[in-house]
Amino acid sequence: MDIKEQVTETGHKARKAAGLLANISTAVKNRALLKMAETLVKESDHIISENARDLEYARDKGLSGAMIDRLTLDEAAIKGMADGLTEIAALPDPVGEITGMRRRPNGLLVGKKRIPLGVIGIIYESRPNVTADAAALCLKSGNAVILRGGSEAINSNLAIARILQGVLKETNIPENAIQIISTTDRDAVNEMLKLEEYIDLIIPRGGEGLIRAVVSMSRIPVLKHYKGVCHVFVDESADIEMAVAISLNAKAQRPGVCNAMETLLVHKNIAGRFLPVMAGSFRGAGVTLKGCEKTCTILPDIEKATEADWYEEYLDLVLAVRAVDSIDEAMAHIEKYGSLHTEAIVTSDYKNSQRFLNEVNSSTVLVNASTRFSDGFELGLGAEMGISTTKLHAFGPMGLEELTTTKFIIYGDGQIRT
Amino acid sequence: MDIKEQVTETGHKARKAAGLLANISTAVKNRALLKMAETLVKESDHIISENARDLEYARDKGLSGAMIDRLTLDEAAIKGMADGLTEIAALPDPVGEITGMRRRPNGLLVGKKRIPLGVIGIIYESRPNVTADAAALCLKSGNAVILRGGSEAINSNLAIARILQGVLKETNIPENAIQIISTTDRDAVNEMLKLEEYIDLIIPRGGEGLIRAVVSMSRIPVLKHYKGVCHVFVDESADIEMAVAISLNAKAQRPGVCNAMETLLVHKNIAGRFLPVMAGSFRGAGVTLKGCEKTCTILPDIEKATEADWYEEYLDLVLAVRAVDSIDEAMAHIEKYGSLHTEAIVTSDYKNSQRFLNEVNSSTVLVNASTRFSDGFELGLGAEMGISTTKLHAFGPMGLEELTTTKFIIYGDGQIRT
Repeated sequence: MDIKEQVTETGHKARKAAGLLANISTAVKNRALLKMAETLVKESDHIISENARDLEYARDKGLSGAMIDRLTLDEAAIKGMADGLTEIAALPDPVGEITGMRRRPNGLLVGKKRIPLGVIGIIYESRPNVTADAAALCLKSGNAVILRGGSEAINSNLAIARILQGVLKETNIPENAIQIISTTDRDAVNEMLKLEEYIDLIIPRGGEGLIRAVVSMSRIPVLKHYKGVCHVFVDESADIEMAVAISLNAKAQRPGVCNAMETLLVHKNIAGRFLPVMAGSFRGAGVTLKGCEKTCTILPDIEKATEADWYEEYLDLVLAVRAVDSIDEAMAHIEKYGSLHTEAIVTSDYKNSQRFLNEVNSSTVLVNASTRFSDGFELGLGAEMGISTTKLHAFGPMGLEELTTTKFIIYGDGQIRT
Repeated sequence: MDIKEQVTETGHKARKAAGLLANISTAVKNRALLKMAETLVKESDHIISENARDLEYARDKGLSGAMIDRLTLDEAAIKGMADGLTEIAALPDPVGEITGMRRRPNGLLVGKKRIPLGVIGIIYESRPNVTADAAALCLKSGNAVILRGGSEAINSNLAIARILQGVLKETNIPENAIQIISTTDRDAVNEMLKLEEYIDLIIPRGGEGLIRAVVSMSRIPVLKHYKGVCHVFVDESADIEMAVAISLNAKAQRPGVCNAMETLLVHKNIAGRFLPVMAGSFRGAGVTLKGCEKTCTILPDIEKATEADWYEEYLDLVLAVRAVDSIDEAMAHIEKYGSLHTEAIVTSDYKNSQRFLNEVNSSTVLVNASTRFSDGFELGLGAEMGISTTKLHAFGPMGLEELTTTKFIIYGDGQIRT
């Protein structure tokens, strides 16, 4: 079989599995998830030895320390993966929920029933734990999944996927509910993204480059965000201590993630008091600041920001700082340079808090809290499958419910239209 | 300006208008809708004279009587359009609703706020009343709209759109909230479908040809159904009188619409009793039947159905009939030949009613009621913007809520992540 046939066959099998999977009970799905967690831990040695092959190859290829770090699976990492599956087993099953059931004047009883999307394709890089995590979220939400990981983790991914498939078989769930593309040939992704007949949704997880490539090739709907240029706006009335704590947390608690702050906006009337205190804390955390002209007058020893800095997602201990004349200027800056991801205001002013929540167009908007809370777990979704900055279907962190849709179900007793 | 510049400019203006429109109050929107209804009626003579130009051109071009019928606007049709706007004004505003507000363990208050999608592009054929209807639904849901009607209705569409824009101006709503592409050049559609930066969603309304062309060209998400090959399954235990009434209504009450039945499936054990009665009723209604082998043994004077008939959307007084051995065979037929639109079962059996509701994958599934109820108004959405058979974002009839999305809003008092 050539690659096109191979991938098409995978799609066809996934579609068939999805039909069966949609009606499998929560108990059966949970039993499989718990068994998967158990088996992953039991098979740690095997996973670690397959992972070693990937690591050897990565070192030969001269991959960076950070890349190798993300690729490495040890016993603790495998335990972490297993714990993730156990947590997903404990979450409520979104499938089957019936909402809005109402009697129409003609006696029809009309409601909406939550159902799986069908087949989900996940295209991801580096971290092999995504294999278990994404497969488990799809299984719990009743979807068949086709996994396509990065070539650098192929042996680890295959080892994990085969363990999961073994459990499906043991627990009488269609084995093709979880499939992985076993070739590392790039054409396989191309072919996968053409299978609109078999795949209902593509979720890419990785850097902006991967995501842009997927979007440009896909005929299937894609849920994604390209980047997170997140802002904190320190309003004139902000509590300075709170503003420093929130800013520092938003920037430095984990700078490499999409919900970290990239640009700090500060009202000019508080800039003189706030910026020196903030700069002291940030220096202690090793953050490099780049400022607008006004900021540089207050903090004369920092670098000047260029126009490009306002668009930048540093993913690092670097922060652009800009003083603004008003909340309107802050919101206009966010609209122009932002990525619809996550923005926060620190304020003591009631009206400004409401304006910011109402008028800022991003998928997550916070008052007096760190942007780092823009996360499925933190917002109470119980899990996260990624974050969408496209408004259709899901906007913001996606949990299990975002992997489902609803159909209308109608109970009648002979009604016809007149 | 060339066409590309012109359409891009329209997109840019729509995006700007959408930013303002999202925060306009329900009262202002409703006032505009009522004023639009009033003005359309007041300007009837002007609309009718512009419509006459389209009709003259249509007659010159030799368009069919049915096409001319759909194109014609008289006083009653304009009154109907105006009444539609008045009804939309009376619907609840979906924008601003906050759901799922919950306190997290760390004290954060997290909820979802319903917001407009932004800019919606509507591409439609023939019926000029879509101009008013679609514009009103977008306005009520806080979205800016770009309308692109068929060339055969261009003068009627422009006349209606200009009246609506005049009212926007009078009522202090950004005029570019409703825009219409004024050229009939086909390139304008091409250019419109490339504006992913400015348009959030495309909804095509028309025949399968139009919809397939839009989907193949669009870089913007499209909500659509290609066709409605809807089924009624008459189960072994069906009440024969009810089954005949539902079948006849599903086929013949309005055969040219997407929720009309195209194939009737009947359990073999009731076929001998049901089919002769049903055939009598259908003959009276002028319906031509085409049957499978078994059906033709019971109804020897009807034509034999071919494989192609099971895929066919007749949109006419023609019906394919097939006898099946079981509910499983009926559901397998629907899965193979159906279009995920609407299916109904007529049954007295509890288990089969539940199996059909749970296992049939279509966007609307009914027990003991006509497929003709698969409609936004009939299901209680208050209005309808079309029907989606794609599972993402909306599945089934779409009302105002399907023209919106939600963002996360979070109230904190200084929370940071640890």
